[in-house]
Amino acid sequence: MKKIAILGSTGSVGRQTLDVIRNHPDQFRVVGLACYHQSEVIREQIKEFKPEIVSIVEKDGEKAILDVAVWPSVDLVVVSVVGMAGLLPTLAAIKAGKEVALATKEVMVSGGDLVKKEAKKAGVNLIPIDSEHSAIFQCLQGENIERIKKIYLTCSGGPFRGKTKKDLIAVSAKQALKHPNWKMGQKITIDSATLMNKGLELIEAMQFFDLKFEQIEVVVHPQSIIHSMVEFVDGNIMAQLGPHDMRLPIQYSLNYPQRISNNFPKLNFSQIKQLTFEKPDRETFISLRLAEEAARQGGTLPCVLNASNEIAVNAFLKGKIKFLEIPEIIEKVMKKHQKEQVKSLNQLLEIDLWARKEAELLT
Amino acid sequence: MKKIAILGSTGSVGRQTLDVIRNHPDQFRVVGLACYHQSEVIREQIKEFKPEIVSIVEKDGEKAILDVAVWPSVDLVVVSVVGMAGLLPTLAAIKAGKEVALATKEVMVSGGDLVKKEAKKAGVNLIPIDSEHSAIFQCLQGENIERIKKIYLTCSGGPFRGKTKKDLIAVSAKQALKHPNWKMGQKITIDSATLMNKGLELIEAMQFFDLKFEQIEVVVHPQSIIHSMVEFVDGNIMAQLGPHDMRLPIQYSLNYPQRISNNFPKLNFSQIKQLTFEKPDRETFISLRLAEEAARQGGTLPCVLNASNEIAVNAFLKGKIKFLEIPEIIEKVMKKHQKEQVKSLNQLLEIDLWARKEAELLT
Repeated sequence: MKKIAILGSTGSVGRQTLDVIRNHPDQFRVVGLACYHQSEVIREQIKEFKPEIVSIVEKDGEKAILDVAVWPSVDLVVVSVVGMAGLLPTLAAIKAGKEVALATKEVMVSGGDLVKKEAKKAGVNLIPIDSEHSAIFQCLQGENIERIKKIYLTCSGGPFRGKTKKDLIAVSAKQALKHPNWKMGQKITIDSATLMNKGLELIEAMQFFDLKFEQIEVVVHPQSIIHSMVEFVDGNIMAQLGPHDMRLPIQYSLNYPQRISNNFPKLNFSQIKQLTFEKPDRETFISLRLAEEAARQGGTLPCVLNASNEIAVNAFLKGKIKFLEIPEIIEKVMKKHQKEQVKSLNQLLEIDLWARKEAELLT
Repeated sequence: MKKIAILGSTGSVGRQTLDVIRNHPDQFRVVGLACYHQSEVIREQIKEFKPEIVSIVEKDGEKAILDVAVWPSVDLVVVSVVGMAGLLPTLAAIKAGKEVALATKEVMVSGGDLVKKEAKKAGVNLIPIDSEHSAIFQCLQGENIERIKKIYLTCSGGPFRGKTKKDLIAVSAKQALKHPNWKMGQKITIDSATLMNKGLELIEAMQFFDLKFEQIEVVVHPQSIIHSMVEFVDGNIMAQLGPHDMRLPIQYSLNYPQRISNNFPKLNFSQIKQLTFEKPDRETFISLRLAEEAARQGGTLPCVLNASNEIAVNAFLKGKIKFLEIPEIIEKVMKKHQKEQVKSLNQLLEIDLWARKEAELLT
């Protein structure tokens, strides 16, 4: 029986994680839940799963999340809070010797260097939940990571695939929140519309799998059936395919390296007529280009990219800025930043804070 | 330095195996070669690779091949002779404790039960070379074979995809020998045109991976980029993709489980626009239906299917029968056969001989 804590239990990944656990009461037990804000959802979760510890953060209560992350009886911590807020609990869980299943890509984007160092030191498994990274992770089972030639990171193209910049001048948050394939939280759905999500995933993949920028190619694949691919030095390519259901990578991360059956809908391949592929449009989706620039340069630049993006997306959701202003703000903050090597958590937190303030000034 | 013997060195897979070895003189050494009939090709091979033992079979000299299969210094035997003739050398190599890389699918189709029993007893690796089975084998690295839910066995559809039975009444051997994607020997190319090749592969896959008939689905995929897929019980699907180049699965089989780089042409995924999928047409391609029937029933029926197919294909290549008579002959011989469980090599060889004679009578 694996004992699980979920940080961000009321969010999209958190609720789906509980659904996986609900399907496998013989395999998993929920011992910790953490979320932001009181709600009917968390009350129901507490009633159903009877955890040993619950933290509900209202404001300035970040430490309460750490208490769940390091709770003694926990074996595996699911990190699915939104954004950079996931970094401290991830580091805390690792240092406490917990396995970590990571859904919050911003943690690896901003703090990947630190997270990997700590995971290595503590000797704990760090398992990706993002469907693309889970795909790559699955392709690497039984393989030597040093034999990777390149990664094809697939991308649905988002709700605005095929549009030009001009088409996007007046889009509303409501339009941007309509993802063609996946149901997700608001922040990641906007990131999918700008293609920033793919850019963050690219940086996340570099961190997770120790790859150079040149080893990752983004391929637009509108059907989102192939979740990513790994080409090895011998020319063979492994791919992972599946339905649009985050519960699959979530379950894989909880039970890694075992695979267990479930009653989730399966992909019926005999009904699939075609899978198509295109190049991403970097003229329209500037955010992808900015993320690629941050990936190429590395150091503290991905942290700045991520922080300014979080602020800009939030401002867009609140109707304070237009869709095309999101990358404009990020670019301005990135240009203002003097890149450094990542040395410490404090350095990162300071730069993160600086970038947020700079971005706020532009909204 | 792995020491290799190649049975069928002048055939298509044999020559490509030598090309792989030529590319990796630091990894492999050819110590044995066997083929049928004197030719300039085998003389050149001997000159270039200087093997310790060579067998050239002119007629009734089958034992000479066995001498190469069990040659003391050999580590791994590549079995790439055509058809059922591969069975005895495969068994001999296994009993002598050699690793076997198997290209001759008829060996597993007819004698899979025996081959697996002997491989288990001797504790040797049996590695598939066929691109589909290599794909499945690669998908299973780091996985538990008992967690397979099903296999999608991909199929190009052959040169006559989309044709009706009527279209195929008058096709010549020359037309049937034009495969859209792969350059292969004559026998397998005709089998690809009738879809018998996919039927034999289905039976081979059942044997190689201990699957039930119901666990394998043939999917027509004209681009032949995805070489096959494995769906696991958790709903995740792993696939292997690659260029149309048999040297990739050959190299993988020689160097398993390591992957080494090479200078063979790579798949450029950014140039691939689409991958398409269809159901196979079992009304037109009767041979696939017959093979599926043999697969479902098992026992000695696959041996009869295979033997009568070998005779019928040979007769077609010689212009003695028409294209559509190939499945007619196989069906008649299958109907005449009383299915038995596979008990011994002698039983199989007798049934194989009987089926060949029956088929000959119909050509």
